[in-house]
Amino acid sequence: MANSKYAYVRNFELPDPLLPNTFLVFRLDGHSFHRFSDTHNFTKPNDVRALQLMDHAARDTMQVHPDIVLGFGESDEYSFLLKKSTTIYNRRQSKILSTLTSQFTSSYVFHWTTYFPETPLQYPPSFDGRIVLYPTSKEVKDYFAWRQADTHINNLYNTTFWALVQQGGQSTTEAHATLRGTFSKDKHEILFSRFNINYNMLDPRFRKGSVLVREEVDNEEETGPRRPQMTRITLIHCDLIKDEFWDNRPWLLSD
Amino acid sequence: MANSKYAYVRNFELPDPLLPNTFLVFRLDGHSFHRFSDTHNFTKPNDVRALQLMDHAARDTMQVHPDIVLGFGESDEYSFLLKKSTTIYNRRQSKILSTLTSQFTSSYVFHWTTYFPETPLQYPPSFDGRIVLYPTSKEVKDYFAWRQADTHINNLYNTTFWALVQQGGQSTTEAHATLRGTFSKDKHEILFSRFNINYNMLDPRFRKGSVLVREEVDNEEETGPRRPQMTRITLIHCDLIKDEFWDNRPWLLSD
Amino acid sequence: MANSKYAYVRNFELPDPLLPNTFLVFRLDGHSFHRFSDTHNFTKPNDVRALQLMDHAARDTMQVHPDIVLGFGESDEYSFLLKKSTTIYNRRQSKILSTLTSQFTSSYVFHWTTYFPETPLQYPPSFDGRIVLYPTSKEVKDYFAWRQADTHINNLYNTTFWALVQQGGQSTTEAHATLRGTFSKDKHEILFSRFNINYNMLDPRFRKGSVLVREEVDNEEETGPRRPQMTRITLIHCDLIKDEFWDNRPWLLSD
Amino acid sequence: MANSKYAYVRNFELPDPLLPNTFLVFRLDGHSFHRFSDTHNFTKPNDVRALQLMDHAARDTMQVHPDIVLGFGESDEYSFLLKKSTTIYNRRQSKILSTLTSQFTSSYVFHWTTYFPETPLQYPPSFDGRIVLYPTSKEVKDYFAWRQADTHINNLYNTTFWALVQQGGQSTTEAHATLRGTFSKDKHEILFSRFNINYNMLDPRFRKGSVLVREEVDNEEETGPRRPQMTRITLIHCDLIKDEFWDNRPWLLSD
Repeated sequence: MANSKYAYVRNFELPDPLLPNTFLVFRLDGHSFHRFSDTHNFTKPNDVRALQLMDHAARDTMQVHPDIVLGFGESDEYSFLLKKSTTIYNRRQSKILSTLTSQFTSSYVFHWTTYFPETPLQYPPSFDGRIVLYPTSKEVKDYFAWRQADTHINNLYNTTFWALVQQGGQSTTEAHATLRGTFSKDKHEILFSRFNINYNMLDPRFRKGSVLVREEVDNEEETGPRRPQMTRITLIHCDLIKDEFWDNRPWLLSD
Repeated sequence: MANSKYAYVRNFELPDPLLPNTFLVFRLDGHSFHRFSDTHNFTKPNDVRALQLMDHAARDTMQVHPDIVLGFGESDEYSFLLKKSTTIYNRRQSKILSTLTSQFTSSYVFHWTTYFPETPLQYPPSFDGRIVLYPTSKEVKDYFAWRQADTHINNLYNTTFWALVQQGGQSTTEAHATLRGTFSKDKHEILFSRFNINYNMLDPRFRKGSVLVREEVDNEEETGPRRPQMTRITLIHCDLIKDEFWDNRPWLLSD
Repeated sequence: MANSKYAYVRNFELPDPLLPNTFLVFRLDGHSFHRFSDTHNFTKPNDVRALQLMDHAARDTMQVHPDIVLGFGESDEYSFLLKKSTTIYNRRQSKILSTLTSQFTSSYVFHWTTYFPETPLQYPPSFDGRIVLYPTSKEVKDYFAWRQADTHINNLYNTTFWALVQQGGQSTTEAHATLRGTFSKDKHEILFSRFNINYNMLDPRFRKGSVLVREEVDNEEETGPRRPQMTRITLIHCDLIKDEFWDNRPWLLSD
Repeated sequence: MANSKYAYVRNFELPDPLLPNTFLVFRLDGHSFHRFSDTHNFTKPNDVRALQLMDHAARDTMQVHPDIVLGFGESDEYSFLLKKSTTIYNRRQSKILSTLTSQFTSSYVFHWTTYFPETPLQYPPSFDGRIVLYPTSKEVKDYFAWRQADTHINNLYNTTFWALVQQGGQSTTEAHATLRGTFSKDKHEILFSRFNINYNMLDPRFRKGSVLVREEVDNEEETGPRRPQMTRITLIHCDLIKDEFWDNRPWLLSD
């Protein structure tokens, strides 16, 4: 075969299996989304259309890959949990990483017009991803707590910042200066006293991020358009930091 | 900071640098493209629109990432060569792999309607990718020779197969049986004697695949829409197996 | 500095940290010990001097490296458990692997004459090692059960085999043939009926292997020649397969 | 088989092949040799017995492993070059690293009494090792140049330092202070003017380190005690930094 004299180059493709029986967390982030959100006039501090599009791409990714049991999104990033027992693609790192990143990206572009019917996509956006292994459920819970605590910190800052700019008339430089050194309670106070905003009454989507949880379904109804499953993927905006979320869904962390 | 008690989970993100001063080849393949091409009625044995869309996505990827100096595409796969001296993303494997896969995927979906104006995309397609390291230029040349030899073998088979089916009235089972055990010259003979097709006169795009080569440009004109560069990316359908291609473009393999 | 123009070669030394908070098992095996044991006239089926020398080298290794909490030896192999929280050498794989292998080897050669005063070492023996990560305590227990079950299987076979040869007058070929297809109970029966050997009464060192366990010591006495510690390393020949061993020593698997 | 229910733990032993067709450099260093050399009263600044023992252990390692073509030693470290085409242990990293480290260590302890007949070994010394991959011969040459430049810098410093202490009557603190900020020529001048030592006339073993080079032998004589080979390992103390060494021995860097 004409091909055989070159086939030795395949020997340079080295195996990259991930440690068995360890939780996989796959996280992806928008690449240069500061520029991307400016170009497409995303609403500040939160663009509900852009967040819903992220959720849609994440849900698609979970539909196609049933071993993903949980997703958590905020801003232009999304994290996914795969069961510790997953054998997806024989746990080959590059295959998993590239396929999941590709699927999410593809869905994001595919569904763009659904969420931005008046805003044509100007150029193809991209995401970067990584896989992190966690040996125990404690670390998995702390991982998602870490991301949700980050959501809270960022959103409180951004909400106050853009209130100062959009309603308070400050320049962005002034708003940064106003917030320098402030604590959470100071930002709550600014929002309430100056702008009559009760932060805790804002849309939990912004304050908590998006949680996509795969739940088992008792009856035989099909839940996915392409892959009949006995599970349903539900979007909620709830607390992930306390144990309650995990205690109520023991299958997420079990074998 | 509320976040700090969880931040230890970052310690599980391990470094993954690629060996310095080694050629990087990034290859991606369509995921379940047999089904994808059926769903979207791709022409057999080659759909020129689908191939042009692949080329477009590849060109975009090279525009955004100037360290890619060469691309080679056939069917639903594309390979890219990065210079051995590249320090893209500090040579972090996951970052490079996920970003390039995402960029290509995004461009593929973004430009779909340009090439398939009458065929709406039915669902978001995905690709998987891998990075392979090659220490010397000999292996790089043999890698691309391997892929182009594969193009030849596959295309000759597919061209003869679909001629038997589409023009010869055979069933696909019969056509496979007809070709079992045949050599290249037998397929050439079938094409010529039964269907009056001179294989060597077919579109070189199908026989040779697509070569995207980054060439240095002498004058100061800008060549890219988003990134002014002193290089130009040219699409050709030429032989990669003989040394001539490489000898005429020494910058591809140099430091 | 004259050295600086070459120092770039250090960039090719890539990081190799092991996943945090995961159990490390380090196992080493004698290299070509079939030949080594023949050359030095090891007693068959078990040479108690050679086994004691292995135990001594293992104990030395544990004295020098306090993060090793357990050792298990049989024949020419030894396995060591490091706590999941260990930060030995910042969990750098090559550093840990090479240092532990070197320490064990060095002690083996160093103490040779203590156990083989009449048998000069003919040439320097070597060992190879590997590190395996286990995310949970279940796998750690099963790992040691696996090694001890292997000890049992091998020792029962070897004991019967050498009884047939040494006491039964069979050639080694005949003895292998006699044992082909036999089950455990058959070998017990051969030993008892032909040679009056009650296998279960043999030295537990041979049947169970060697267990070196690090135990906490209440008082302030020093236990190591070079490194005062509040722990003591105890050699026992006990069952590792049932839970009792682990239940009685919870510190081995705790954080 | 009693063993089979535990055998799954082997799935956690992951493959670790090194990139093919790439030079391997294996370097090992004495572990805590400052203390070791004090305990055993090594002569300062260089103990020729200790250096010869290192050379002997290195030569043994090269005898046992024919794919090592070059060794370079200084002080308590040794570097070895393996041919880029080597398939030793299928290029499995842990196997190679642990075996070579073990062999060297074993030989070091084994031959101790030959070089230190009056100085009993007080405790088992250990070494740590690492493997570094280099894609091209340029980096290999620069690696060895880096080590030899280091030899020069360290030896000139140490020679001057110990002259100040041993012959000049300075304390070690004073000697360090005397040398602070000095250049090479200053140290040469101190040695010559104060102690009448012409540095360039010192034993090249100290100034250049030890080079063990595998050379092809024309006739059929056996050169190794255990492995008849058509090669001979020669110890020299020559310059590795200029190209001449490599130009005269093209087989070291060839395929």
